Amino acid sequence: MTGSEPEEPEHYRVISRERLAKLRESESVTFSSRTQQSAALLERGRNSMVKGVPMAWMHGLYRHPCLFVDSGAGSTFRDVDGNSYVDFNVVDLAMTMGFANPHINDAVNRAMNTGAHFLLPVAEAIDVSEELARRTGVPFWQFTLAASGANTEVVRIARALTGRNKVMVFDGHYHGHLDDTLVARAGGKVGPDGLGLPKGVENNAEIVAFNDLAAAETVLRQGEIAVVMTEPALSNCTLVKPDPGFLSGLYDLAHQHGALLCLDEAHNFSFAYGGLKRAWDLPCDFLVLGKGLGSGVSFGLYGLSAPVAAFVDAHTAIDLGEAGVATGGTTYASTIAVFAAKAALEEVLTPGAYERLEGLGLRLSSGLQDVFDELDLPWRALHLGPRSGYCMQAAEPRNGAEAYRSIDVDLIAARRLFMANRGIWEAMPTAGPQVSFVHTEAEVDQYLGLAREFLHAVRVQGTE
Amino acid sequence: MTGSEPEEPEHYRVISRERLAKLRESESVTFSSRTQQSAALLERGRNSMVKGVPMAWMHGLYRHPCLFVDSGAGSTFRDVDGNSYVDFNVVDLAMTMGFANPHINDAVNRAMNTGAHFLLPVAEAIDVSEELARRTGVPFWQFTLAASGANTEVVRIARALTGRNKVMVFDGHYHGHLDDTLVARAGGKVGPDGLGLPKGVENNAEIVAFNDLAAAETVLRQGEIAVVMTEPALSNCTLVKPDPGFLSGLYDLAHQHGALLCLDEAHNFSFAYGGLKRAWDLPCDFLVLGKGLGSGVSFGLYGLSAPVAAFVDAHTAIDLGEAGVATGGTTYASTIAVFAAKAALEEVLTPGAYERLEGLGLRLSSGLQDVFDELDLPWRALHLGPRSGYCMQAAEPRNGAEAYRSIDVDLIAARRLFMANRGIWEAMPTAGPQVSFVHTEAEVDQYLGLAREFLHAVRVQGTE
Repeated sequence: MTGSEPEEPEHYRVISRERLAKLRESESVTFSSRTQQSAALLERGRNSMVKGVPMAWMHGLYRHPCLFVDSGAGSTFRDVDGNSYVDFNVVDLAMTMGFANPHINDAVNRAMNTGAHFLLPVAEAIDVSEELARRTGVPFWQFTLAASGANTEVVRIARALTGRNKVMVFDGHYHGHLDDTLVARAGGKVGPDGLGLPKGVENNAEIVAFNDLAAAETVLRQGEIAVVMTEPALSNCTLVKPDPGFLSGLYDLAHQHGALLCLDEAHNFSFAYGGLKRAWDLPCDFLVLGKGLGSGVSFGLYGLSAPVAAFVDAHTAIDLGEAGVATGGTTYASTIAVFAAKAALEEVLTPGAYERLEGLGLRLSSGLQDVFDELDLPWRALHLGPRSGYCMQAAEPRNGAEAYRSIDVDLIAARRLFMANRGIWEAMPTAGPQVSFVHTEAEVDQYLGLAREFLHAVRVQGTE
Repeated sequence: MTGSEPEEPEHYRVISRERLAKLRESESVTFSSRTQQSAALLERGRNSMVKGVPMAWMHGLYRHPCLFVDSGAGSTFRDVDGNSYVDFNVVDLAMTMGFANPHINDAVNRAMNTGAHFLLPVAEAIDVSEELARRTGVPFWQFTLAASGANTEVVRIARALTGRNKVMVFDGHYHGHLDDTLVARAGGKVGPDGLGLPKGVENNAEIVAFNDLAAAETVLRQGEIAVVMTEPALSNCTLVKPDPGFLSGLYDLAHQHGALLCLDEAHNFSFAYGGLKRAWDLPCDFLVLGKGLGSGVSFGLYGLSAPVAAFVDAHTAIDLGEAGVATGGTTYASTIAVFAAKAALEEVLTPGAYERLEGLGLRLSSGLQDVFDELDLPWRALHLGPRSGYCMQAAEPRNGAEAYRSIDVDLIAARRLFMANRGIWEAMPTAGPQVSFVHTEAEVDQYLGLAREFLHAVRVQGTE
């Protein structure tokens, strides 16, 4: 049966496509029967929302009908049918502090009582900036509404500072909802990543392979790159770690060729105390944080080196006066965002919490490796801090193209249904599983048990 | 003295530049002495934030040092020095429901206890969409994080649907932080509005004069416009109202020439129940709402006509599958946003509340006209619902260029200091004054008394 799909990569052969298809079908029936209230809401939703949901693209995330959620607490949420799910996607890392975290709830409550927004600073914004400067080593900070907004400002500042136009990103990147980085490489050429992007958007970006300094240098040498933007470890195409020296080499090359380097830690900041910037002592010109640092509250932040901050200071617009860098955002730095950020940094994202998280992440990834080994699957469990992942070959991926070989859509779709029907919310197709600050060892073990059961059910019997 | 500045417009001559400069100087001294705690925080802030504030551009808003806020309640906020201010800018319309509105606070509190975000829908999102559909007549709704994000999606959908690239906007427009509309006309040519925008951004937009259907048609006839974007009444360059028939004529012309029309009511939605869309029975393809509908919570929304919604439905991306319109946003439609939107619509933005607001707005604008008349200033008080404004000529502006003639930077800077020192927070240079749902008649009268006192102090004595 496995030979029936000619494009199927070699390393998928350990999975029986027949058993997978059968399992997916039966799990799908179970899922439907368990989620009838959700289905009814979805039907009602279709009369006033595209695809029945508040963002149509959310429909495209799951390959099964969207659930409607009732509520969540800690690591777990409950749908409107009363089913519970331990979330191993951690809401795409927007909720690494857990649902209804009391520290964050208290901070937001105080913010609402203080007044949600003023378009004037509150003193706590200084506390946040000082703490981020201390923790990351990046000295100056600015607020936005999300990492997308932060990356937007970064690109604009870099363009204004360097007088250049292009952004360099890596295969497998995702930096949010801005035009400039919504590009992908197809057939060796850069093209728009989706419909409706502005004409010529592909001329504003270059895409190279991660961990390939020579390729980066070839592009940088052309002198058109304003800023190189990357996650320290790519987290949107399973998990790709940098080779030793790659990121500092990239910084040196960028500077040698008149470009700046931005580290996007919207996801990575949950991977280690102070982010990978601190953990790996990385040099950079910009550091981007997002997902409300994992609190579920909408805000992003970007850090600036002293020279970049001095440039922005000298090129800040005066309303109805001199033009400056096109930064903006009248709803940025709300009291909600500032208070949540302060509580997150001071009360949740402590060294002790990261230490515990590290232990849980190790339990998850080493446990997953044990499952692979036990089932004779020649795979590797990815691991970085709280993040694990299914690498369907023995060697870890070194770039996006290699990582995508382990994104087996059918396997993931079946696994998600299987897991959901047994109380686990599985990762986005391109991510995790990942533990949050509030997961427990028992929940990790529950995940591992189900992963074993699932893989046992779908592997080719000959490998037994 | 007034003759000493050759570029000074005719209609400024009623203001004594000499008295204005003196007043500004003395008020500036008073302001500094009243705000020493803010100054100290600003000084501390400069070590970790550009310009000492969480968004550097905020520094450019005021032409005086930024205040640090302690807290707000209702229409009024207090700075860290203990000074109180009735806000007649209403935080650039982000807080039209007032600071610490109990309905919104309760909703956000419930949202935090429910779990701030799931990347899955909650049933209340349907309630919001259904109510918006009922109230505005626009049938389908989607969430974003702010009006900027909504306008971004609108442009992308319009491009994908029409196969065209350009956006048409009007002189005096502001549609948020997206590249495409950050353009301005200088010397008859469209150029980038700020530093750091992508090369060629000016090729993605056309700018015409508001209320000029012939000019709009000339551009539309070229067949390059995907979407025409406008506020029903321009609110970012004082206040410019549409001529009768202009907006429906624009819709007809757009459709005649294969383009779509987007009404941006991020500000205007507070001007009338159901927005100006409903009040004036306007046709449109897209309707954009923002500023958390005035709650201070970060969210935006966009409405779609049935044909446009059907297009998006048919072109929604499947992750790792077919490409779709490049819509996105992993932090959109949080529980916080959805619950706040529901509470805003059901508990605050009621017909009765708009009726009361209308009365207050009339009191403000007719009172301001009385002040002008009494002081023999040949000016006109602008008026639309809760919004008033200083039009420094007898005829209301019909487009951005005419409106900008009434934006007298020195006058505004002095007025703001004068007002601030007496407990009134004045409008952005390009906006208001405007009343919120929680202002009182006494506060309006306080504003009017101070406006009279200020204008009396700075007008040319010969006009007395």
